[in-house]
Amino acid sequence: MSTPSPQRARSAAAKQQRERAILDAAQALGAERSVREVTLTDIAAAVGMHKSAMLRYFETREQIFLALTAEGWEGWSAALRARLSEFTDVTDVTDVTDATNATEVADGDRGTIAAVIAQSLVVRPFFCDLLAQAPLNLERNVSLESVYAFKTVVLGEVAAVAAELCRLLAITERAAVDVIATATSMAGALLQMAAPGTRLRTLYETHPELAHALVDVEPQLTRILTALLNGMPSAER
Amino acid sequence: MSTPSPQRARSAAAKQQRERAILDAAQALGAERSVREVTLTDIAAAVGMHKSAMLRYFETREQIFLALTAEGWEGWSAALRARLSEFTDVTDVTDVTDATNATEVADGDRGTIAAVIAQSLVVRPFFCDLLAQAPLNLERNVSLESVYAFKTVVLGEVAAVAAELCRLLAITERAAVDVIATATSMAGALLQMAAPGTRLRTLYETHPELAHALVDVEPQLTRILTALLNGMPSAER
Repeated sequence: MSTPSPQRARSAAAKQQRERAILDAAQALGAERSVREVTLTDIAAAVGMHKSAMLRYFETREQIFLALTAEGWEGWSAALRARLSEFTDVTDVTDVTDATNATEVADGDRGTIAAVIAQSLVVRPFFCDLLAQAPLNLERNVSLESVYAFKTVVLGEVAAVAAELCRLLAITERAAVDVIATATSMAGALLQMAAPGTRLRTLYETHPELAHALVDVEPQLTRILTALLNGMPSAER
Repeated sequence: MSTPSPQRARSAAAKQQRERAILDAAQALGAERSVREVTLTDIAAAVGMHKSAMLRYFETREQIFLALTAEGWEGWSAALRARLSEFTDVTDVTDVTDATNATEVADGDRGTIAAVIAQSLVVRPFFCDLLAQAPLNLERNVSLESVYAFKTVVLGEVAAVAAELCRLLAITERAAVDVIATATSMAGALLQMAAPGTRLRTLYETHPELAHALVDVEPQLTRILTALLNGMPSAER
């Protein structure tokens, strides 16, 4: 990461560059430790700015991480939709070349889709950490304007992923939104419970009587999403 | 609540009484506002003790709320198991009086069980708030001894509820544990997203373009648990 120039950023481009440097520093620190452990002072030190100068770019520590959560939604949504789009060909067993015809994944394949969704989240531990922090902590310590901007991005990405799930699984939009809410919330919650790399995790691993407290995120999330998808009724056609 | 006597509690009974007064004060404040907004100073003021004196009973603010979370698990588990035990008679359509014979709820009734689970959580908003806070904040700011005691209570209650779900739905213990993890985590997450009584909620309600951000916890949790239970395979008998 390049060290930002000490003089105050004057142009819009320079301002944007500075914002990017702050976000990158926060992301690097958050991914290295965990979001909860990163303070505004840590971010300022990493980016080489004074804390008061940094507050000209972001209202609070939470606004920085909320902006990263919005970016996380965009990145996850794009990656998952790209992966799901591959399924059209594989499951287009009816060999109908009419692209406007919705292709329903066979019931047995819903587990495959569940595994794809689970994996797309598990490979993004920093995003999962943010997903857990956002409703509890991040959305509560920013202006309503910031929440508005954040929610607008999230609702757009939820709608985009939901459209792909509706197409693939022939479920209603409401069911697809329920799947996305469960997948993202449970990925966040299970990762917190798994607490990888912490003294909590060590406690669970070293006490056989606490073995049931040991959470293995990907298989559990896959099992839950498989049952959820299998239990979702198909939409009326 | 009686005002505790100013002199240092000497006997075990007096100590226990003082701890109870602290827990009751924290619960009243947490239920009135939200857990995140209650400080150690608030609790000390409510119970009429000096903050430093209170720390002789509990390590941190988080230990107080973690103890209340454990009590919440005991209360929720007992109430849900009592409610679920009523289903034995209703669904015992085979009229087999042998009480050792597991009674399987018919597939169509899994939605009823899902609704019972969802409702048992929704009527406990303070517990749901604690469920969301525990893995993120509460378990992270207490001693390992406190986490150990907390996890021991939770694992016991999870096992008790799981046994009831296995009996009623004829699913595996692992599936039952997945159901409990999803029910409790989603109840916590959805309540945070619903954010009742906050300026966030007002923002969603007053901006039609954010209507999809409006979470209605009980119907959404019921839909999710219904699909989850319907998609859970029956255990081999």
